[in-house]
Amino acid sequence: MKSVEEARLYCFSPGDFLTGRDPVEMVAAQIRGGADLIQLREKNMPKRGALELGLAIRNLTTQEGIPFIVNDDLDLALILEADGVHLGQDDIPIKYARPLLKDKIIGISTHSLSQAREAIDSGADYIGLGPVFQTKTKTKADPVVGIDLILKVQELSPVPVIPIGGIGESNIGLLVNRGIKRAAVISDIFSSKDIEAKTRALKEKLRGA
Amino acid sequence: MKSVEEARLYCFSPGDFLTGRDPVEMVAAQIRGGADLIQLREKNMPKRGALELGLAIRNLTTQEGIPFIVNDDLDLALILEADGVHLGQDDIPIKYARPLLKDKIIGISTHSLSQAREAIDSGADYIGLGPVFQTKTKTKADPVVGIDLILKVQELSPVPVIPIGGIGESNIGLLVNRGIKRAAVISDIFSSKDIEAKTRALKEKLRGA
Repeated sequence: MKSVEEARLYCFSPGDFLTGRDPVEMVAAQIRGGADLIQLREKNMPKRGALELGLAIRNLTTQEGIPFIVNDDLDLALILEADGVHLGQDDIPIKYARPLLKDKIIGISTHSLSQAREAIDSGADYIGLGPVFQTKTKTKADPVVGIDLILKVQELSPVPVIPIGGIGESNIGLLVNRGIKRAAVISDIFSSKDIEAKTRALKEKLRGA
Repeated sequence: MKSVEEARLYCFSPGDFLTGRDPVEMVAAQIRGGADLIQLREKNMPKRGALELGLAIRNLTTQEGIPFIVNDDLDLALILEADGVHLGQDDIPIKYARPLLKDKIIGISTHSLSQAREAIDSGADYIGLGPVFQTKTKTKADPVVGIDLILKVQELSPVPVIPIGGIGESNIGLLVNRGIKRAAVISDIFSSKDIEAKTRALKEKLRGA
């Protein structure tokens, strides 16, 4: 299986971007297009539905040999035998999560230098950092962190730093030009009619870093 | 510790009924008034906050020797070393929950005879059944089940049946008069200015069954 260190393009389940499409096919299209990791992120779905979708995505990611991460819910991560969880600043703190998850991957969302430092010190296996740009995915988004902070945190971090928030085909070059080789993309992929082609285009650009 | 079988009055953390009060004191008042069990039920609170409140309630219930149950979240139940979880029809199915929770209590919310039978057959340690009366706690409530169905399910169930939904001081006598000795109460307790006195009054009435 690919490691988080190897992951360049970090992708997601569709969440509220589903709009009548098949969520499993939407994930499969991202994998065909070069997604290196899939996170189950279904904040508005009841847990029974998220579990069912998670089982299907778990099968897909296992077949493809890429990491499968579950947002927020340690219980779903354990039941789905996910490779790890992703925790936000309002979620269960890592000190309580680690004993349940043992050597699984724990990623932490961070939105500032101090949050990034704290996450790294607490033993995160990777951190998300953003929003890099203005984002439409979150209704209450944190202030934009900008590319300079991504570079600064990358320098001090022993674990992968994944820029997230407002990144799409039109602006990912701004990251690549600064040597940043990772990105998490939600809205730009799911707003596309051809998810596979959009994912492939983003991945190609990241390969230029 | 009291068992679920011994529990007559099933009580809750305040959830959206908090209205500026101290949630731990609201739980303590219910315990002083005779609550036999406390469920952490904070559907709109981020998990970090629910974990903190849960730690305080876990301490209280341990001191008082009454069961502490966590709504929905198996991960919080494990971290808080709760006595069990309570799962709704949209939550993680019991067949996935049981391996994580082992011999902890699993309660299931049911809203019909067929749901009650299914929950019992799947190994629930108790079932909630309701709404018995019209309720203000849930925005999208299931149809009222009525007292006759409570009696019918009690007869066939080897595990405790806990009537819930719209039960308060003004109508709990309708249950007691039919020999029903258990009830879960949310709104009527938290709408009261004196939570301890209200809880005591409800418990007194249940003792008459």
